[in-house]
Order: sequence, then structure tokens, then C-alpha cells
Amino acid sequence: MQGLLPNPIPVFKEDIPTPALVVNLDLFERNLQKMADYLNQRRISFRPHAKTHRCPTIARKQVALGAAGICVAKLGEAEVMAASGITNILITSEIVGKSKIKRFIELAARCPSLMAVVDHPTAIQDLAEAANAKKTTLNLLVDIDGGNHRTGCVPGRAAVELAEMVCSSPWLRFRGLQCYAGRAAHSIGFEERKKYSRERLAEGLESKAMIEKQGIPVEIFTGGSTGTYDIDVVVQGFNELQAGSYIFMDLDYRRIGSHTGDSFMDFEYALTVLTTVISQSHVGLATVDAGFKAFSTDKPFVPELKSDPGVKFRWAGDEHGILELEDARQAIKLGDRLEFIPPHCDPTVNLYDFIYAVRGDRVEEIWPVQARGMSQ
Amino acid sequence: MQGLLPNPIPVFKEDIPTPALVVNLDLFERNLQKMADYLNQRRISFRPHAKTHRCPTIARKQVALGAAGICVAKLGEAEVMAASGITNILITSEIVGKSKIKRFIELAARCPSLMAVVDHPTAIQDLAEAANAKKTTLNLLVDIDGGNHRTGCVPGRAAVELAEMVCSSPWLRFRGLQCYAGRAAHSIGFEERKKYSRERLAEGLESKAMIEKQGIPVEIFTGGSTGTYDIDVVVQGFNELQAGSYIFMDLDYRRIGSHTGDSFMDFEYALTVLTTVISQSHVGLATVDAGFKAFSTDKPFVPELKSDPGVKFRWAGDEHGILELEDARQAIKLGDRLEFIPPHCDPTVNLYDFIYAVRGDRVEEIWPVQARGMSQ
Repeated sequence: MQGLLPNPIPVFKEDIPTPALVVNLDLFERNLQKMADYLNQRRISFRPHAKTHRCPTIARKQVALGAAGICVAKLGEAEVMAASGITNILITSEIVGKSKIKRFIELAARCPSLMAVVDHPTAIQDLAEAANAKKTTLNLLVDIDGGNHRTGCVPGRAAVELAEMVCSSPWLRFRGLQCYAGRAAHSIGFEERKKYSRERLAEGLESKAMIEKQGIPVEIFTGGSTGTYDIDVVVQGFNELQAGSYIFMDLDYRRIGSHTGDSFMDFEYALTVLTTVISQSHVGLATVDAGFKAFSTDKPFVPELKSDPGVKFRWAGDEHGILELEDARQAIKLGDRLEFIPPHCDPTVNLYDFIYAVRGDRVEEIWPVQARGMSQ
Repeated sequence: MQGLLPNPIPVFKEDIPTPALVVNLDLFERNLQKMADYLNQRRISFRPHAKTHRCPTIARKQVALGAAGICVAKLGEAEVMAASGITNILITSEIVGKSKIKRFIELAARCPSLMAVVDHPTAIQDLAEAANAKKTTLNLLVDIDGGNHRTGCVPGRAAVELAEMVCSSPWLRFRGLQCYAGRAAHSIGFEERKKYSRERLAEGLESKAMIEKQGIPVEIFTGGSTGTYDIDVVVQGFNELQAGSYIFMDLDYRRIGSHTGDSFMDFEYALTVLTTVISQSHVGLATVDAGFKAFSTDKPFVPELKSDPGVKFRWAGDEHGILELEDARQAIKLGDRLEFIPPHCDPTVNLYDFIYAVRGDRVEEIWPVQARGMSQ
């Protein structure tokens, strides 16, 4: 098992052992700054989703540019981020089961700003009992289904009842609502995304009004994504954005389309997988050292060669990809180091222990993906 | 970043934090023994492919039952395995590039039994120069394309020339041939697999005869897979099997079919991903805490609920899966812990730091996946 840094530490990009995760620092910093500026100007709270990077170094950079804190999907990620000094963490997935509740309360005792979401009376009851036993205050948001039927309660009456239930426990603190319209993030076409997101947010905001009518203040209304960042933040009542992928971008996000009908290019491709051509025995083919263990494989499209999107990539098992070369053939040869844009950034990053942050031909920094694999 | 063991160490299966990789020890040990017996009885050398498990503990168990050594796909895996005391390692992918050649020679100096494959004159030349500079003997096999056009030279004259080139360097030792018919492993239908594998092996064995005719002994002829274990080992001249997945099995292997036309069930489903139902707000649906970061996603089929294959699983992002419940609905509720058979074992294992080895309701051992992520 590797330590916190690779050994030896590469000085130049050409020394990085492949396959490797590479961030182009110029592009990454522009992405980071662009979203920060957009939200700071509009005085919208920003809580970037750290499930994208699982990397405390990046979380710190986001906070340094004004983020209020971070989101994580899982308790295991929250533990790593908190141990790295990140405070104000929201865990966006429900915490269920005795041993997880125990860990959550232990973490909350160390990090009083920690928040989690709930979507079921049983879960609230379990948390209330455990919090009471340990005399620890827990900050909770009620999670409202944003249309995916994945997590979150049904909007409306159910949300009000859950909020009331949270308020009725002396050790639980109701902080607000989470409403993530996951399908909106990846809907193709700006108008389509806008329509879908607005409908889901309207349901969530109606629940908010109903809860406030009961005299319960709703401090936080959090949700949204890279795909809806400029759609959600202008909605009255929505006050915290959870975008994650904007820092890296990926092929999936490009295809969702922009205002103008073109590709979604609001943010730049800062993340690539660096590979090496390790075999070339057949005319028109070349094999790179990166396959299912080097790229996400959950989308119906393949990695794209950054320098020449016309070269076709074909999966060739756990450790290999085959390039089908036509005109480009002469340009690619054994030993070449090629960069690919991954289909989906989050699960790609989760395969690696390090991110090599590169400027020009230099490795400027190496960022450990410390919460890699921490889905528990 | 986690250490070599989880903290706390779960005593019972019900204490394992989810999502988690679980091995049923009774089934796993039967798989291990069955393949060992099959090959020991036939006096075929066995070199199980450790890319499946990336786990030195399992490699040691395989060697204890008679395996001659192990295969790994990448140099990074070989370094971890060697550091864990495993000797006699074959790296089955081509090693290309200065820094990798340097690492390979350093490892070969520590592990004189280490072997690698070559498929290109340039690569042999680079290895010869580096070996000469460091006065280190390198054991090499010539890799022959088994039909995938992924790695390996064209069978026949090209293979002979590469073997001769290896023999012409004083620091390179030609040990034999690798011929892996990857497509045969996953062809559906026993007769189809047999036909395809036999054709590819015939080409490889013809190359072997041509090399031997030049007075060059071919000690090793290695290849094959779980899907062709009982097809390849009866071929005259084939003397080393590289099967990997037999220890765990997966949905992909079931579908390739057996002798009798049924599912391929020569080995049992020993590997599962243990999950928890964390949300249930909608009639007929339940959400588990395992998605793209908990399962392989490279196959066109989804994880299967071990206790009830009739329950439909639907991907719901990085961290979640949604179960569509019909008759089974009453049986599944919030907090339930459910086990799924992964679509593809190798890339699933590569997502986890530990394998929990379970017998009955007890966690008997915990095996660190020490070479996880070591694709470099």
C-alpha cells in the first residue's frame, strides 16, 4: 500500500509513471476561480461537493476562495476531511445503521459544525436516541427527493413531519433542507435542465414554505450541481450550491450542452489520465496501458484523446485500451505518452492514490486522494 | 488514507461497514482447492493471475496449494507482491519507458526469478541496454498475440525473430512464450470457446515449434484463463495456466456457459459486495449505499442480489443503487444489509482496501488489497 506520496517523486511530467491522474494547473485554477467569482458576486453560499476529488488539498483550495465548507457523500469521506482540518462538512447521503451512527456522533463531537441529512422517521429516531445517550448535538437537514427517487423524502407533508420530528428532539438541530435534482445535472440541453431543475426546486421550496409556516426557520436550502450552477442560484430561496465536477470537467458534462446550444464548456478540461503506448504490433492499432482500472466505465462513451479527439479508443480489458488509428497513425508510436479526458471524473479519481498537478512540463504539486475508496 | 487494517476491526459480519467486499470462506476455499486439484492431477504448472485479487494473502494461499508462482499485469503489482515475499512472478503486460525499465531491473536484481514479456524489437533493445548497464539478468517471454490485437507480436516469423533477439543479448534470458487468447475467456458457449482458444493456441504452438527448430529451447508456454482452464491444459505443449477469476467468480463468467450448455458454474460465487438499505421513501423502491464507486461498471449488466436474483438493481450514481421491488417488497426494508454479486470481479476488487473473509456470521480474517490501484 502506497504512502501519502509516490516514491520516487517525479519532477517533470515525463517522469510520471503511467497510468496517472494529471491536473493541468492553469486550467484547474481558472475553473476554481470562475465558480468562486460567480457565487461570491451573487452572495450565494458555496459548498463544493468533495466526492468529486476526495482530496483535502483541493478542499482547502476551495475554502480559501470563499467556499463555506464542503459536501461529502459518505461518512468515511467526512472523517478523512475532518482529520485534515476541513470544518463545516455536510454529508449528503443518509447515515443508517448502528455502527455508522456511532461514528457520526463521534465525529460530530469533534466537529460541531458537521451536518447530515435525514429522510425517514426511523433514522431520526435512531439518531435522536444515540445523540441523547452521548449528549451530543447533531445538525440535520431534511433531505427532499429531487426527482431521482434515490434518496430524500417525498416533498410536502412528509418533509414537514420530518422537520418537526427533528425539532422535537433536544439533541437534534434542524438546519434546513437538501433538494438535489440529480437528473437535472445531466439532462441534455440548457432549457431542458432549467425546466426540470426549476420544477424540482419549486417542490422543495414549497416544502420550505410549509415548514416555515409551522414557525420552524429553514436556514439552509442546499442542492444543485455543475450542470445547473447558473440555473439554481438565481432562484429565490435557494441559498447554497453543491457543485463538484466544475474543477475537473469530463466528457459527460460536455455533452449536456450550454445556453447557446453548443457543448457545455463553461469550465475547462483540467483532468486527464496520462498513459503510455506499450504495444504496437498491428497496422492501424496501438495499445495504451490504461483500461477498466484506469478510467471510469459507467458512461456509454469512451475516453477521448486530448490531442486528437478523432482517434478512436476501444476498451481492451482491465489494464489496456486500443487506439484505432487512421490518418493519425504516423503520429502515434511505441512509448508515446498520451493524455485522455475521462468519461466521468468522480469515479475516475476514485481509482488513484495521487493527483499530479502539472504546469507546463513540471510536476508542481502532488495531491494525495486521501479519501479514495472511503465510501463507508 | 487507511492503514493495513480497518479500524475498528469487525468481529461479526453484521459489524462490517458497508459498502464492503466480502469473501465467503467456505466457497472461496472450495474454488481454490478445485482448481489446484485439477492442475496438480494433470501436472500442469499453475501461475494464477493476481490481477484478480491484488492481495498478497491470497497469492500465498495459491502458492501453498501448489501454484508455481503468480502472474501480475503490471510492474507496480509485482513490486508489492515481491515486497510481501511472493517469488516467481511473471508480469504479463509489456514494460515500456525508461523509468519503468529502471524499476523492473531493480526488482529483478532483488528477485532473480522475476519474468516479463516482450513483443517488440525496440523494447528488447531498451531492456538489453539497461540490463547490460546494470549487469542484471532479465528473464523474458516473447508475448504472442492471442487474437485480441491488444498485446503480443504476430505469431510465426515475428515471434522467432524476437526470441532470437532476446537470445543474442548476454543479459537477457529467453524463457518461453506467452499466448493469451483473451477473447476465448469470455466467448459464450463451451464449444465456441474451445474452437477459438484451440485456433489461437495452434498459432502460438506453431511459433514454439519454429523457435525450437532454431535450437532455442522453449521452457514455458503460458496462457489461458478461468474460462478455458479445462480446454487449454489438455493441449500438448501448453504447460502453464494463468487463470485468475476462479477464486471469486462473477456474473460475467457465469454467462459464458458450460459443457452442458448451462451457466458456467464450475466455480462458486465466493465474492460479494455487502451493502445497506439507506433510503426507502417510495413504494416499490429501496436505495442501497453502493454505486459506481462500489462495483465494476464495465459490463453491460448490473449487480445481482445474491439472496433474490429477481430483485432488479438500477445504477443511481457514484454511491447508490436503486432496487425495484415487486413481490420481494415486503422482504426488504430500511437498514437491511444486502449482498450483491458483482458484474466483474477484478475491477470491483480494485475499488477496495480490504477483503473481509467471512465464515458464517464471523469475520475470520481481513485481507488487505495491498496492490490496489498499482497499475503503474
